[in-house]
Amino acid sequence: MAALPNITLLGAGNVGTHLARALHQAGYTIRQIYSRRPQSLAPLSHFCQIGTSTRLEELLPDSDLYLIAVADDAIASVAAQLRVASTAIVAHTSGSVPATALIPHLRRGIFYPLQTFSAQKAIEWAHIPIIIQANDTAAEQLLRQTATTLSSKVYELTDEQRQLVHLGAVVVNNFTNYLISLAYDWLQQHQLPFDLLQPLILETAQKVQTQNPHHAQTGPARRGDHATIERHLSLLQHNPDLRDLYSQLSHLIMQQNKVL
Amino acid sequence: MAALPNITLLGAGNVGTHLARALHQAGYTIRQIYSRRPQSLAPLSHFCQIGTSTRLEELLPDSDLYLIAVADDAIASVAAQLRVASTAIVAHTSGSVPATALIPHLRRGIFYPLQTFSAQKAIEWAHIPIIIQANDTAAEQLLRQTATTLSSKVYELTDEQRQLVHLGAVVVNNFTNYLISLAYDWLQQHQLPFDLLQPLILETAQKVQTQNPHHAQTGPARRGDHATIERHLSLLQHNPDLRDLYSQLSHLIMQQNKVL
Repeated sequence: MAALPNITLLGAGNVGTHLARALHQAGYTIRQIYSRRPQSLAPLSHFCQIGTSTRLEELLPDSDLYLIAVADDAIASVAAQLRVASTAIVAHTSGSVPATALIPHLRRGIFYPLQTFSAQKAIEWAHIPIIIQANDTAAEQLLRQTATTLSSKVYELTDEQRQLVHLGAVVVNNFTNYLISLAYDWLQQHQLPFDLLQPLILETAQKVQTQNPHHAQTGPARRGDHATIERHLSLLQHNPDLRDLYSQLSHLIMQQNKVL
Repeated sequence: MAALPNITLLGAGNVGTHLARALHQAGYTIRQIYSRRPQSLAPLSHFCQIGTSTRLEELLPDSDLYLIAVADDAIASVAAQLRVASTAIVAHTSGSVPATALIPHLRRGIFYPLQTFSAQKAIEWAHIPIIIQANDTAAEQLLRQTATTLSSKVYELTDEQRQLVHLGAVVVNNFTNYLISLAYDWLQQHQLPFDLLQPLILETAQKVQTQNPHHAQTGPARRGDHATIERHLSLLQHNPDLRDLYSQLSHLIMQQNKVL
């Protein structure tokens, strides 16, 4: 296998920060890291060979790989301003932005680690799915090689497939987290501690690591237990948002399980 | 502390089975285990001192504690048919059934382990919240002692508080599992493997073990990213149930985060 590519990283948010740490640890040379915000760059300076920069025009044009890990709506503009050698590969890390956002560049790709990254929390990269895509074979190989050094789960998907997966990610991450936040508020409202529910939340997620979620479904709606559902709805009379969701989700679960 | 109470267990479903195993392992004498279904009792016979039974009238009346772990809608009828000494404590394991369902018995209580139990999957009892309640102090002490030998998290709550918590459990377990099942179907429909989302599901749950879920919220709706939301809604045009939920939950998340 060829030597590890050297990398320029653009973006120092959660994804950029976790990538910088993981790539550095895997032995990659990160030449420069760019961010508009100097305070985001400060903790990353020891990961770069040359240095950090808040100006795109300061980035050297001859890295092998430019990884753009900025906010979705800034990708096209950062890519448009980035000046690199025609042999360089430019890839972004977004689940939903099409590869065409990188079109000023000849060799384009995607390097999307499908995970939710927190500022404080360390991440176990070995099992994070990394979705790659490239517009030429050598670029695809370089992205695959890079992904493989971080994780055992590397998938090559099209733009469209990646967007379908990203939609699924919104459902299982953003929407479930929102439901959890409603349960959090509900317990708070009644002076009950949230740690009553934390082990259940974890077990719910652990179950579907090995079980089909359809088989893991339980609860009053799954059983068609109208008495409990009605009792819960009456407890929710002063919480209209949660009440509506409770009613609707219970109905959908009964429908899915043919207990309506 | 007094000697461990001896126990008769009624119910051999997931909760009953996990309780039998855990109590036996903790050194309790389980004298008899009852279930209507002989095939559920077979794997539990080595946990009982006297034996298993499919007939309530065969249960000896002089155990210290009778734990009723049958389906919610069978609790009242099983309790009504159960003949025990007036000193015996009768408790059920349900999150939503009031303690009054046990009213034929003088000494009544609740022993509700707040977790989702699967037939095949072992459970780490040490951190499972166990919610107890009793109608006299000695009964409360006995239930607390029993709970404490299984878990470090024991809570004494009222009927009403327990129902509020149970409602929260429905939200974070049943409803999030349902959303996960929709994402599962969505990937299946497009021939994409579910293991793309499994690590994200686990990390979502792990995050809220230490973070307030409001701070863990991310995604297009959290950012007010209407372009991505619209693109996802158009991908969902042939999935009306998921489309409606997507639209509604995105709206609620935008509202919660004041990015509408």
